[in-house]
Amino acid sequence: MTITGITTPEGFAAAAATAGIKQSGKPDMALVVNKGPKYVAAAVFTRNKVVASPVKLTRKAVADHRLKAVVYNSGCANACNGVQGDKDAAKVVDAFTTRLGLAGDDVAMCSTGLIGALLPVDKMIGAADGLIKNLGDNGNRAAEAILTTDTARKQACIRAEGFTVGGMAKGVGMIAPSMATLLGCLTTDADVDAEMAQNALDAAVEQTFNRLDIDGSTSTNDTVILMANGASGTKPDVRDFNKAVLNACEDLCRQLQADAEGVTKRVVIRVIGAATDEQALTAARTIGRDTLTKCALFGSDPNWGRVLAAVGMADAEMDPDEISVFFNEEAVCLHSTGTPDAREVDLTGEDITVKVDLGTGGHGTATVYTTDLSHDYVEINSAYST
Amino acid sequence: MTITGITTPEGFAAAAATAGIKQSGKPDMALVVNKGPKYVAAAVFTRNKVVASPVKLTRKAVADHRLKAVVYNSGCANACNGVQGDKDAAKVVDAFTTRLGLAGDDVAMCSTGLIGALLPVDKMIGAADGLIKNLGDNGNRAAEAILTTDTARKQACIRAEGFTVGGMAKGVGMIAPSMATLLGCLTTDADVDAEMAQNALDAAVEQTFNRLDIDGSTSTNDTVILMANGASGTKPDVRDFNKAVLNACEDLCRQLQADAEGVTKRVVIRVIGAATDEQALTAARTIGRDTLTKCALFGSDPNWGRVLAAVGMADAEMDPDEISVFFNEEAVCLHSTGTPDAREVDLTGEDITVKVDLGTGGHGTATVYTTDLSHDYVEINSAYST
Repeated sequence: MTITGITTPEGFAAAAATAGIKQSGKPDMALVVNKGPKYVAAAVFTRNKVVASPVKLTRKAVADHRLKAVVYNSGCANACNGVQGDKDAAKVVDAFTTRLGLAGDDVAMCSTGLIGALLPVDKMIGAADGLIKNLGDNGNRAAEAILTTDTARKQACIRAEGFTVGGMAKGVGMIAPSMATLLGCLTTDADVDAEMAQNALDAAVEQTFNRLDIDGSTSTNDTVILMANGASGTKPDVRDFNKAVLNACEDLCRQLQADAEGVTKRVVIRVIGAATDEQALTAARTIGRDTLTKCALFGSDPNWGRVLAAVGMADAEMDPDEISVFFNEEAVCLHSTGTPDAREVDLTGEDITVKVDLGTGGHGTATVYTTDLSHDYVEINSAYST
Repeated sequence: MTITGITTPEGFAAAAATAGIKQSGKPDMALVVNKGPKYVAAAVFTRNKVVASPVKLTRKAVADHRLKAVVYNSGCANACNGVQGDKDAAKVVDAFTTRLGLAGDDVAMCSTGLIGALLPVDKMIGAADGLIKNLGDNGNRAAEAILTTDTARKQACIRAEGFTVGGMAKGVGMIAPSMATLLGCLTTDADVDAEMAQNALDAAVEQTFNRLDIDGSTSTNDTVILMANGASGTKPDVRDFNKAVLNACEDLCRQLQADAEGVTKRVVIRVIGAATDEQALTAARTIGRDTLTKCALFGSDPNWGRVLAAVGMADAEMDPDEISVFFNEEAVCLHSTGTPDAREVDLTGEDITVKVDLGTGGHGTATVYTTDLSHDYVEINSAYST
């Protein structure tokens, strides 16, 4: 059987099109349709206070935890366009709603691309009939059409006891800034209610997408949607369902991290010995966002002093005299003091783990996933909008 | 009259030496002595929880608001060396205390350089006699000896009504990481008490050094010291004194910003229309630390969408539909919507101002000073310790 991500679970169809939003002429629209019998939906949105028009629209559409379709476009974020942006998003969604024979707020929208550019509404509506006509087992094409500066599509498929979870994603946090919104779409043929769907998604996103922290930025458009139709006839145990959704998100995150822009190193930051898990997470994020630590890792430089300087800024309890740092499980700093061979540790590989013990004696732990800070990151992000 | 920074006010002497701490063979030690008649001192230290041994020593030494001398060294931060680091710092300071004929805790120490390297105690004590012998109007040499990756020395001299404030500084926040601690030294012949000195220093640092935010990092060694000896016989008005100290710090900060590593642009971020000044500062810092905004400015790219995405993450009240952004005083975003000519704004100059109105209708304002994020920043910070 071919894995097609979001169209692998029963009762989902997708299509992709080139509407001409992207100047590159690459596919830039996708449509994902839930064919039922149920139309349960859950969503998680960006925490940014400035949100794009499609986020506003989708928040309303999914408020009743019911969706039948999602319209995706890349090449234009439709963010910061004021009332015009809201109207444009509504026009596109209305056109799809009508053509799909649906009514009300059963269609959501996700956009990604440059902030401040207006949505090419006519082009997008012009692509609607073709998209609807081509609906089918086209998860691969949809996953391709939502990409912006990504170099490869990201798809997942988790087979569980009697049901399946499929997924696609693009971007990675704000790694490729205004253009690299994180969009995620999960589909499942499990028979779950709205609460179970939302709980599973919340828990999975918190442990995966929200732990993938490339530059500390969050976009105006970040959206992850889960649709469940019950087509498998299986009502899964809550643990099994949570685990399948989590595994799908984990798989997508691994792919996002590997494809983050300008990346030469995949970095896992693990904090232990914190007073609470929450404080461990705060400390891990602080290290993961420290540009000096990230530059050192780009240079394969075991400069543990930067890790200590970074963690010392974190709003978390620690014993300043009892912090330990491990690079790739080798101790480079114990009792806040460098080990004799600390600077000999080999960090030339593509994967680096940084483990930090805050020395409180507590059992709080957390892991975040990040990358190095490379020349390519600067290059890609310094020459984009104009 | 020649401006010599810290030795311009009456009653201060300085000397510099090459003790061999730096491999480069450049000057790496300085001694600053307050010849009295009074020995008032104030200090501000890093907020990092992980602090270097010289910071611990100086905190104790200045606790009584009295200092007669400060020993400076570059090339070694003496941070994260555990008990050994504390002992080493004490040994060096004891040697100077004895040779200067002083007693107790009248000598402070500031170190900057690589974290985790041990202080070459013997070399430093070996340089003590020469430093003491050469004490004189050598503010310039002292300002040179405290530099690490700085390309030019930073000195200030403010002539006020009947008294003078001199200053020197190096580094800029953590711009040149473990090596670029911010150290500042201010001297004045004004006759002020400890409270007036500390108040003036606190207020000035808050408005200057603490607003200079290159990468959000704070070092293990950051220290700014103010010494006042009353040699001018002038007891200044509190406003005049505060202003002179502030002006000296402003002058030093301008020099630090201009010399920050890898800098191609000096960026002023001004936030207005916030509910409170504190919230304005939070918002300004969030923008100033956003790597995507800083990459765009490096590319002279008027990508105002990144500014909106950045400010939207700030923990500050704002009206998401009423945010305005100005680049070099030209409106690029009004009512959270791009202006027609937004992308035509010329940002090719070396100085860029970014003004953001949070749209709350409040009167809170704040300014922070930062830089772009350039290839050189990555280069310098990816190849340092090894």
